[in-house]
Amino acid sequence: MKAAVLHAFDEKLTAKEFVKYEDVTDPKISRPMDVIVRIGGAGVCRTDLHIVEGIWRHENAGWVEAIGPGVEGVKVGDSVICHPLVTSGHCLACRRGDDMHALDSAFPGINANGGYAQYLLTGQRSLIKLPKSLAPKDVAPYTDAGLTAYRAAKKASRHLLPGEYVAVIGAGGLGHIGIQVLAALCAAEIIVIDRAAKSLDLAKECGAHHVVKADGNEVEAVLALTSGRGAEAVIDFVGEGDAIAKGLSMTANGGYYYIVGYGGKIELPTIDMITTEKTIVGNLVGTYAELVELMALADRGLVKLHTKEYRLSQANDALHDLHHGHIHGRAVLIP
Amino acid sequence: MKAAVLHAFDEKLTAKEFVKYEDVTDPKISRPMDVIVRIGGAGVCRTDLHIVEGIWRHENAGWVEAIGPGVEGVKVGDSVICHPLVTSGHCLACRRGDDMHALDSAFPGINANGGYAQYLLTGQRSLIKLPKSLAPKDVAPYTDAGLTAYRAAKKASRHLLPGEYVAVIGAGGLGHIGIQVLAALCAAEIIVIDRAAKSLDLAKECGAHHVVKADGNEVEAVLALTSGRGAEAVIDFVGEGDAIAKGLSMTANGGYYYIVGYGGKIELPTIDMITTEKTIVGNLVGTYAELVELMALADRGLVKLHTKEYRLSQANDALHDLHHGHIHGRAVLIP
Amino acid sequence: MKAAVLHAFDEKLTAKEFVKYEDVTDPKISRPMDVIVRIGGAGVCRTDLHIVEGIWRHENAGWVEAIGPGVEGVKVGDSVICHPLVTSGHCLACRRGDDMHALDSAFPGINANGGYAQYLLTGQRSLIKLPKSLAPKDVAPYTDAGLTAYRAAKKASRHLLPGEYVAVIGAGGLGHIGIQVLAALCAAEIIVIDRAAKSLDLAKECGAHHVVKADGNEVEAVLALTSGRGAEAVIDFVGEGDAIAKGLSMTANGGYYYIVGYGGKIELPTIDMITTEKTIVGNLVGTYAELVELMALADRGLVKLHTKEYRLSQANDALHDLHHGHIHGRAVLIP
Amino acid sequence: MKAAVLHAFDEKLTAKEFVKYEDVTDPKISRPMDVIVRIGGAGVCRTDLHIVEGIWRHENAGWVEAIGPGVEGVKVGDSVICHPLVTSGHCLACRRGDDMHALDSAFPGINANGGYAQYLLTGQRSLIKLPKSLAPKDVAPYTDAGLTAYRAAKKASRHLLPGEYVAVIGAGGLGHIGIQVLAALCAAEIIVIDRAAKSLDLAKECGAHHVVKADGNEVEAVLALTSGRGAEAVIDFVGEGDAIAKGLSMTANGGYYYIVGYGGKIELPTIDMITTEKTIVGNLVGTYAELVELMALADRGLVKLHTKEYRLSQANDALHDLHHGHIHGRAVLIP
Repeated sequence: MKAAVLHAFDEKLTAKEFVKYEDVTDPKISRPMDVIVRIGGAGVCRTDLHIVEGIWRHENAGWVEAIGPGVEGVKVGDSVICHPLVTSGHCLACRRGDDMHALDSAFPGINANGGYAQYLLTGQRSLIKLPKSLAPKDVAPYTDAGLTAYRAAKKASRHLLPGEYVAVIGAGGLGHIGIQVLAALCAAEIIVIDRAAKSLDLAKECGAHHVVKADGNEVEAVLALTSGRGAEAVIDFVGEGDAIAKGLSMTANGGYYYIVGYGGKIELPTIDMITTEKTIVGNLVGTYAELVELMALADRGLVKLHTKEYRLSQANDALHDLHHGHIHGRAVLIP
Repeated sequence: MKAAVLHAFDEKLTAKEFVKYEDVTDPKISRPMDVIVRIGGAGVCRTDLHIVEGIWRHENAGWVEAIGPGVEGVKVGDSVICHPLVTSGHCLACRRGDDMHALDSAFPGINANGGYAQYLLTGQRSLIKLPKSLAPKDVAPYTDAGLTAYRAAKKASRHLLPGEYVAVIGAGGLGHIGIQVLAALCAAEIIVIDRAAKSLDLAKECGAHHVVKADGNEVEAVLALTSGRGAEAVIDFVGEGDAIAKGLSMTANGGYYYIVGYGGKIELPTIDMITTEKTIVGNLVGTYAELVELMALADRGLVKLHTKEYRLSQANDALHDLHHGHIHGRAVLIP
Repeated sequence: MKAAVLHAFDEKLTAKEFVKYEDVTDPKISRPMDVIVRIGGAGVCRTDLHIVEGIWRHENAGWVEAIGPGVEGVKVGDSVICHPLVTSGHCLACRRGDDMHALDSAFPGINANGGYAQYLLTGQRSLIKLPKSLAPKDVAPYTDAGLTAYRAAKKASRHLLPGEYVAVIGAGGLGHIGIQVLAALCAAEIIVIDRAAKSLDLAKECGAHHVVKADGNEVEAVLALTSGRGAEAVIDFVGEGDAIAKGLSMTANGGYYYIVGYGGKIELPTIDMITTEKTIVGNLVGTYAELVELMALADRGLVKLHTKEYRLSQANDALHDLHHGHIHGRAVLIP
Repeated sequence: MKAAVLHAFDEKLTAKEFVKYEDVTDPKISRPMDVIVRIGGAGVCRTDLHIVEGIWRHENAGWVEAIGPGVEGVKVGDSVICHPLVTSGHCLACRRGDDMHALDSAFPGINANGGYAQYLLTGQRSLIKLPKSLAPKDVAPYTDAGLTAYRAAKKASRHLLPGEYVAVIGAGGLGHIGIQVLAALCAAEIIVIDRAAKSLDLAKECGAHHVVKADGNEVEAVLALTSGRGAEAVIDFVGEGDAIAKGLSMTANGGYYYIVGYGGKIELPTIDMITTEKTIVGNLVGTYAELVELMALADRGLVKLHTKEYRLSQANDALHDLHHGHIHGRAVLIP
């Protein structure tokens, strides 16, 4: 089959050619629960630019091409979306529904072959059948970008009450989904902070009640909007540079700072955690059940992906546009 | 009345005389809900050594000496313990039971006169009547050290399940109470880490299932006790030096690191928060209702304070002993 | 002052004259925290037809007319809405924010004089200042009907996930608010059941996704809409007749049946509770903080009251119309 | 193999011969995840007397005798305890860790062959490996009686605070485990109600703080112990006769009544649920993860089963003794 393969990693990301489009061996069914999915869409992720993980990525949806002998519940031809993690389901974390902390798991695109290719080898436990309203290429980015944003926003929505505020830092590929999830799951007022005017426009379309240009005074702006107390939840989709310190500063006393983006460093005196009684929450993708929940939102039109399509053979263009900040929403590779 | 007063703050804490025992003006009732308490015991707190806050401290219990005209529910002569914060009860945080985040409040001993004295001016909303089983001098340290330890341990107990582990860093004035609270409120196995053998002995008496000497290999020791996964909850009563980085390292994936002690700094890459999905939780004393709960534990003998008594006139000896690590448990000033 | 007073209770509610409009003694400030409110609007409640409680009712909003010497935070002339319960704030339930279970409390209109009058005596702890967007006569019914619906809907929203269903039985004075609160606080699909076509129309305006005519086959209709499993939450605003048994039958296994309306009886074998693992939840008005939350929703236009206004002197007309099912939404008495 | 088989059901339970000990066909592996367990102990359950379900029961532990080709994680010879439900793990309930509400499941002993036999056919997803401290015959009753008691007690422990009370109705096979679980998981005071003095003695051994003889005045006795307010949680292991009405009456306002036993009927006016804001909670066995948690308690000696052993060939004696109330704790059939 054809695939877009990383051969060597260019630390400075100056290369025009991030990946090579070439022939690779077809995946094969070897275990009872294996499933091969013909890729209909593969999301392009900022993690691909960090690329500590290798390449071929992990946001995939398509059609079931072949199934192992033990597979029940999906059949060849079904349109499916793939949870990014492949787990056996036997450890205690899995049994509690907490797939992401499974003891044994494979992460296609990170520690196994991923979906910048025509076919993907995965397992039955990773597949969710799509409703007719949703085409694979339109939903692929939900499996990682979408799911990560969903989980963080859902955590926040569990404690956000009417009259409270949530600040979202970054309205890009993840952020623009997070905003829609917040609007669907709670009645807090949503403040969105971004450097790009275009992203702030997207934020408004997605349901932001207030937008703040990240011009150096974003903490003051959030305090002004919140009667001086800060936001009860801050979801930081940037996670690098001064976003972190600012995100913590705009969190209200007793509030929660959800960290989703990465690349930077948290640095603060313990005394500040004590006197403000804040909580800092790490977020790692989401569970299978949460992906089902997100699909339910998408099926009802409560969450919409803003995507830009590229052919698999043009993967480099997509990575290039992402690297240079030309994508507002999410890039998707199609066959 | 007599009081132990801080006149100047010695940064290096080298002075033999931390405070002066002298005559000061008696407090007076001026508002309808005011109450004056004759101090029966005042806890001596490590915060007094940080002393950014001034002096006269905030762990007080005694007997009602005088009440304002609007006070109901307590009467002169009642033995009481004083919640450390004086609030009006009208803001939304108070109405939700979250006293510590009240918009308007006074913190006797920090931003108001405290209890290293014969009498304390406070308000009705701060007082809990003591059951007959508990004498003021025996319970005073519960109001801050005890309450702070209780709240952090209670938070952890809400998610700790049988088969899981909680690591307690520091078995001193707060830690030895936290251990007992954990033993009362959940069935997780309790691992206690401390530098002092004497504190580890106290930890065992308090209910620790495993003790670990803080000799530089404490992370490895905790991983060894927990099948390599770390503790689902870590409560850090030290909060300075390498305790913080070690505490975070011994927290299991998906687990919670509760920060109670202070003086140091949290420093970690955001990527570490993402891949491990940990949560860092700040802790600020506790609510009035939580102090009632802690008194219920004390009344039933489920939590016992290990105290060392000093006369109010000997406040300097107590502060000196605390500063030099000679107190295992908690020092209390009595009249 | 003028008031609409119940003199004798007519069990069959056949009387044309439920109350008499007459002169009564003005209320007076006697305690430090007392407040007198000049009524701008008083909601007319189905409880007034059950009238076990006497009369003069408990859904009031208006302007502060006089305050006791200890009152802070509100001043004469402020427009306010009155939480239905007057509490001292000293018991443990109050301190936990759980006002409704206060040990000492008065319930104007039930065990004290209520608001079918020109003035109401209440306490500072019951008052919430209104934002400029909200006039007293437009929000009065929120204090009981609205608050009760809000609390039940909020409880349900805490566990309702995308892809799940909530069934609302009864789209009247409480139900039509409950529907709007659910739409604001969660992303579950809302199914509304009522006998009256007009109420189902109101339900759709309020955000119902599906409406079901209560024609005897409502359980089957809900099962059909929910793939045969029932609704994960059912909120029963009727609570009498066959609504109860039907409500329990349309609750999914592991789901919650919230009972709000009353007059009927719950009857079911314990074995049915075991095999289905359902939960039946009682609901009693709501807390002060929840009324603040509801006001925040109203201020943003996320919840709107459908009201019909009557002069205080025409209270009998309002009670008559309510009794004969002519009010879709809520009746309000104005000065 | 040998089994104790029900041939005809005697409604009045007057028969001396409940089951016949005879030869039946050996179970066989037919699917990849099948496992055959050689029974080391089978708990005898009150459900066997209700026997609506057929016979051969569902509380089993033993040793792995044979495994299907897809089985990982357990091997022949491992000592195991069997979760009572066999599920495929693919439905959303399973994926959330909520096994008991699986869409497709088999319940050996209820709708499939059970464990009053030498061998049991089950699946890998039902097995938990036993620590060396626990022998199959000593833990078998944990899988249903124990697990059911554990789940109800755990639910209660999530909200029970120090200073609060939990009332346990019935200190038999389930109740005596529930008491120990409560003592391990929370610090509420435990009140146990039973008709038999011997059961109350067992309750005290298990950790009850107060015992109340069920002599008709048990509601008054519980109110007297709880300052008149009732218990914040009531766990009813009887669930028939007047236990239900009494259990509801001794539940505090805002409290929870957990129903575990069955046979009787819940009957109460909806108005009573409203004014008291109580919650009635159904309880159905427990999840796989909860059985792991219970095994952790057993391994540490925090929960001990009081068992009486009978040979499989003497199953009728066990059923007879149970029927006549001669078993205080739990009967177990051994090979």
